[in-house]
Amino acid sequence: MPNLLLTIRYDGTHYHGWQVQKNALSVQEVLQNALEDLFGKRPDVKGCSRTDSGVHANMYCVSFRAPFYPGEYHLLSALNHRLPPDIKAYACQETDEAFHARYACKGKEYIYYIYNGKYENPFLSRYAFHYRYPIDADELNEAAKHFIGTHDFAAFCSAHSDVEDTVRTVYDCRVSREGDMIQMTIRGDGFLYNMVRIIAGTLLQVASGKIKSDEIPLIIQSGNRKKAGKTLAAKGLFLNKVFYGEEIEG
Amino acid sequence: MPNLLLTIRYDGTHYHGWQVQKNALSVQEVLQNALEDLFGKRPDVKGCSRTDSGVHANMYCVSFRAPFYPGEYHLLSALNHRLPPDIKAYACQETDEAFHARYACKGKEYIYYIYNGKYENPFLSRYAFHYRYPIDADELNEAAKHFIGTHDFAAFCSAHSDVEDTVRTVYDCRVSREGDMIQMTIRGDGFLYNMVRIIAGTLLQVASGKIKSDEIPLIIQSGNRKKAGKTLAAKGLFLNKVFYGEEIEG
Repeated sequence: MPNLLLTIRYDGTHYHGWQVQKNALSVQEVLQNALEDLFGKRPDVKGCSRTDSGVHANMYCVSFRAPFYPGEYHLLSALNHRLPPDIKAYACQETDEAFHARYACKGKEYIYYIYNGKYENPFLSRYAFHYRYPIDADELNEAAKHFIGTHDFAAFCSAHSDVEDTVRTVYDCRVSREGDMIQMTIRGDGFLYNMVRIIAGTLLQVASGKIKSDEIPLIIQSGNRKKAGKTLAAKGLFLNKVFYGEEIEG
Repeated sequence: MPNLLLTIRYDGTHYHGWQVQKNALSVQEVLQNALEDLFGKRPDVKGCSRTDSGVHANMYCVSFRAPFYPGEYHLLSALNHRLPPDIKAYACQETDEAFHARYACKGKEYIYYIYNGKYENPFLSRYAFHYRYPIDADELNEAAKHFIGTHDFAAFCSAHSDVEDTVRTVYDCRVSREGDMIQMTIRGDGFLYNMVRIIAGTLLQVASGKIKSDEIPLIIQSGNRKKAGKTLAAKGLFLNKVFYGEEIEG
């Protein structure tokens, strides 16, 4: 049975994250239903990452064994026909027998969007956190550099987590503005529970003057969740890229 | 009582157009409910245009008499607090006593979005028509110029319409591409029922080779709805600008 690497996009608004769970609809369940309908057999789909309820993905990779491989165009057309409008696949290839979308993942890039317009925008209500007060994107970009490197990010991890090793490497973290939209991009080898949303919340506290940029290294060192900013809403968060090669560090 | 000119944006996905109707939710009804809650009195809100079910607006103007005017920021903040996420106001001013958002309107600009990616994109499923085959945007832009001018657009009007005078002036009509997104922009003094969506459908027939660009003047002259292209889906259509001054012709 061929081992396939499938890449999808999804609008996470109406899903309780990636992973199958009782009493709530997940992206994994919907994808498995569509693949079962297509192949006549329910595959065990391995996702590259857990994502939280409401989080979106521009690129999300999964691997699974299929009874046969009809080629990329035929598979994607037939699969998309069976998927709802908010989940669509856009790439597929045969891969090594041992490939596992999660274990093979070298790192990920997330984007957090903050809409900085004076009034809410209906077209962004599902895709960005609204913050109406002034944001100096250059100042936040300087502050963001403090997160780059290998650190113990325990201060940037929600309490629910049962992860023991809280050391992660952030390869890049930057903030830019385009019109009223502020974009925080972060790339790393892995992320703790809510880590990106807490880093975004901490940067907003730099914008509001509640935290000074050069306090960030001290917050990291403290390992104290209470010293970092709030966890911003899931809706502003996009898994943007998944890396399987060495280009992650570039 | 001050006469106010209010400007809103809305995602039309879940509304049966602008106008109040029985048994279906309209943008006008939701806006009037919010204004009634805010002012303690139900205003009679005049909209700049009818828009169809599922059509969106980046700019939609309304006028109404309010018991008092608390100033732009206070009015918009209090109103947006009472509006759902898919309808939000972003400008307000006091205007002449005689101003009526519909009668004073000198013209409108619409944009129709066609997503030309190979596979559907979940983030565009509510906001663009998906067309996977090749589109030469430059060719369509040349074809679009045939619509500019004062013409009888009867061939580009759906049969349901009871409008008698089908002559309209189109000031500009152009097509451009940005990545996988094709954008048709059209500006005119007024539009017949489904006119923009039929023009977009006709341009797609130029893309597919079913209609030649230089046949468009003949289709216009024929006055025959059957010779023009299909009415494309409402979801790709945005009312983009409403003109009250002379800049419409520029």
